[in-house]
Amino acid sequence: MKLPKLVLTDIDGVWTDGGMYYSESGDEMKKFNTSDSAGVLFLRLLGIPVGIITGENTQIVQNRAQKLRIDILHMGVKDKLHLVKQIATEHRLDMKDIAYIGDDINDIKLLQQVGVSACPANAPQYVANYAQHQLDVKGGDGAFRAFVEHILTECNQLDRVLNLYLKL
Amino acid sequence: MKLPKLVLTDIDGVWTDGGMYYSESGDEMKKFNTSDSAGVLFLRLLGIPVGIITGENTQIVQNRAQKLRIDILHMGVKDKLHLVKQIATEHRLDMKDIAYIGDDINDIKLLQQVGVSACPANAPQYVANYAQHQLDVKGGDGAFRAFVEHILTECNQLDRVLNLYLKL
Amino acid sequence: MKLPKLVLTDIDGVWTDGGMYYSESGDEMKKFNTSDSAGVLFLRLLGIPVGIITGENTQIVQNRAQKLRIDILHMGVKDKLHLVKQIATEHRLDMKDIAYIGDDINDIKLLQQVGVSACPANAPQYVANYAQHQLDVKGGDGAFRAFVEHILTECNQLDRVLNLYLKL
Amino acid sequence: MKLPKLVLTDIDGVWTDGGMYYSESGDEMKKFNTSDSAGVLFLRLLGIPVGIITGENTQIVQNRAQKLRIDILHMGVKDKLHLVKQIATEHRLDMKDIAYIGDDINDIKLLQQVGVSACPANAPQYVANYAQHQLDVKGGDGAFRAFVEHILTECNQLDRVLNLYLKL
Repeated sequence: MKLPKLVLTDIDGVWTDGGMYYSESGDEMKKFNTSDSAGVLFLRLLGIPVGIITGENTQIVQNRAQKLRIDILHMGVKDKLHLVKQIATEHRLDMKDIAYIGDDINDIKLLQQVGVSACPANAPQYVANYAQHQLDVKGGDGAFRAFVEHILTECNQLDRVLNLYLKL
Repeated sequence: MKLPKLVLTDIDGVWTDGGMYYSESGDEMKKFNTSDSAGVLFLRLLGIPVGIITGENTQIVQNRAQKLRIDILHMGVKDKLHLVKQIATEHRLDMKDIAYIGDDINDIKLLQQVGVSACPANAPQYVANYAQHQLDVKGGDGAFRAFVEHILTECNQLDRVLNLYLKL
Repeated sequence: MKLPKLVLTDIDGVWTDGGMYYSESGDEMKKFNTSDSAGVLFLRLLGIPVGIITGENTQIVQNRAQKLRIDILHMGVKDKLHLVKQIATEHRLDMKDIAYIGDDINDIKLLQQVGVSACPANAPQYVANYAQHQLDVKGGDGAFRAFVEHILTECNQLDRVLNLYLKL
Repeated sequence: MKLPKLVLTDIDGVWTDGGMYYSESGDEMKKFNTSDSAGVLFLRLLGIPVGIITGENTQIVQNRAQKLRIDILHMGVKDKLHLVKQIATEHRLDMKDIAYIGDDINDIKLLQQVGVSACPANAPQYVANYAQHQLDVKGGDGAFRAFVEHILTECNQLDRVLNLYLKL
């Protein structure tokens, strides 16, 4: 595997376990996992930008993206494949240079077209069929970090990144 | 199995793991799973309406129902069987045309009378005894979607629905 | 086993998984399980009152107790055994007529003195040693209901209670 | 093992499962486990102070620390090893007198230098490699208490502490 030049990710079911907390007062919550922040950090140490592509449109995701200084954020996306093709063009990237992790039916077309694709352990089989790799970590349990570690391991870069981190 | 003409569902213990979050300030929360929204979508693609029948009465469920554009919503229901018989009459349906998923003692009578019935993996045995099928998915882990997929699989409609979705 | 005349219960670690949610704005939450409400209902059908005895002092528990119409509620309890002896005297009960479920070190003395005692599946071994029965259900997963079902099963009352409920 | 003179702990991934709840209104939550409070109590009974060392900076942790009367609290820590060396100097302690539990890459250097080190069951392998002991309890499931029990067991002090507690 070649290191991707851009790593994109779904949110619900990947950064979360799919949980959507609704409150009686009208507020809404998502539960992220701090474990995933190391995935973002590892990519930053290698100079690889990270982007979020999600069908939902919430302040929640905007705040999480800001906290982790995510490079690209697109919310309320209807057609993920169409959008990512545009992003590829803008950034002068081939679709093969892009990695993507998603877990559900609205991710299928995109999973088929990127260079590196994966889904969490608990994605439906009929979605997992379209991903190159099914992680053994569930959504919300650090699936994004596991995806990054999978890429880094395949590219023999995990030890290098850990050493870069420890020398910071 | 024949495709049902109406799919009804309990909320607590089916769309959630039974969790009821109480806050010190008096607010209340439920945790839904975005995974279940695909179940609603699959039925919509087949033109089958979806209804929620719950004993609880909260703004939470009303908001979730609205987000997913649920067709029928009844809250604060004391006698579920009685209500569903009324719904059947109104919609000129036979009870055998209705599918229902519930998980607890207040669902037993209804589970016995509908055409297709199921309960989540973690329903008590003395409730599961009255359902035709016990799913291998727990409440809150996508049990409603699993119920819909169970029906579609039994009716050989899952591939068709997935293809309908991918051509949207 | 003889049916107890009063069933008492701890909250944190029994009705919940021990989780205490703290918010940045100073609010606090606990996650209850609607499954436990059937335990309260079963006892009510048999005319057996239910009481909560907890070391914590929160509006959260007060609201949950009110929702389920719990008969006895004591919060902020330092010495549970001392309090329950007082309750026994007030209600003219022998300690042997009382059942109690608790999960931690502040429950040990009380677990030793009541007629029927149990702890959830995940209580520490050095607490479980003092309970007559360790349930196979964890705190927050319906441990209180499992405790009630354990009592009803031992007393050959579970089927009777279910029939009472279904005839309501 | 010799009893440590100071026990320090990370928060996210140790006292919690790494979960960070973000709300649409901008609020944030962490889920603690009341089970860990017994770990703090056990150490207090032995006169061993407890300190929190975390990279995050939240009112949440401050409130939890206050509730449990934690002796030392440092938040927003960039270099944990550097800080703990300062704490050691201030308190006239050798690094070998200090115990620490952490779960992620920013804990590695500190885990290597303290007298007693551990990580939760679900810490990444490349972090666990630097801890003397990997607990069989996950972060958020009472990992801090399990760490304290591990120390007390190794030092043959667990029974003594339980007896001290029961005589209070």
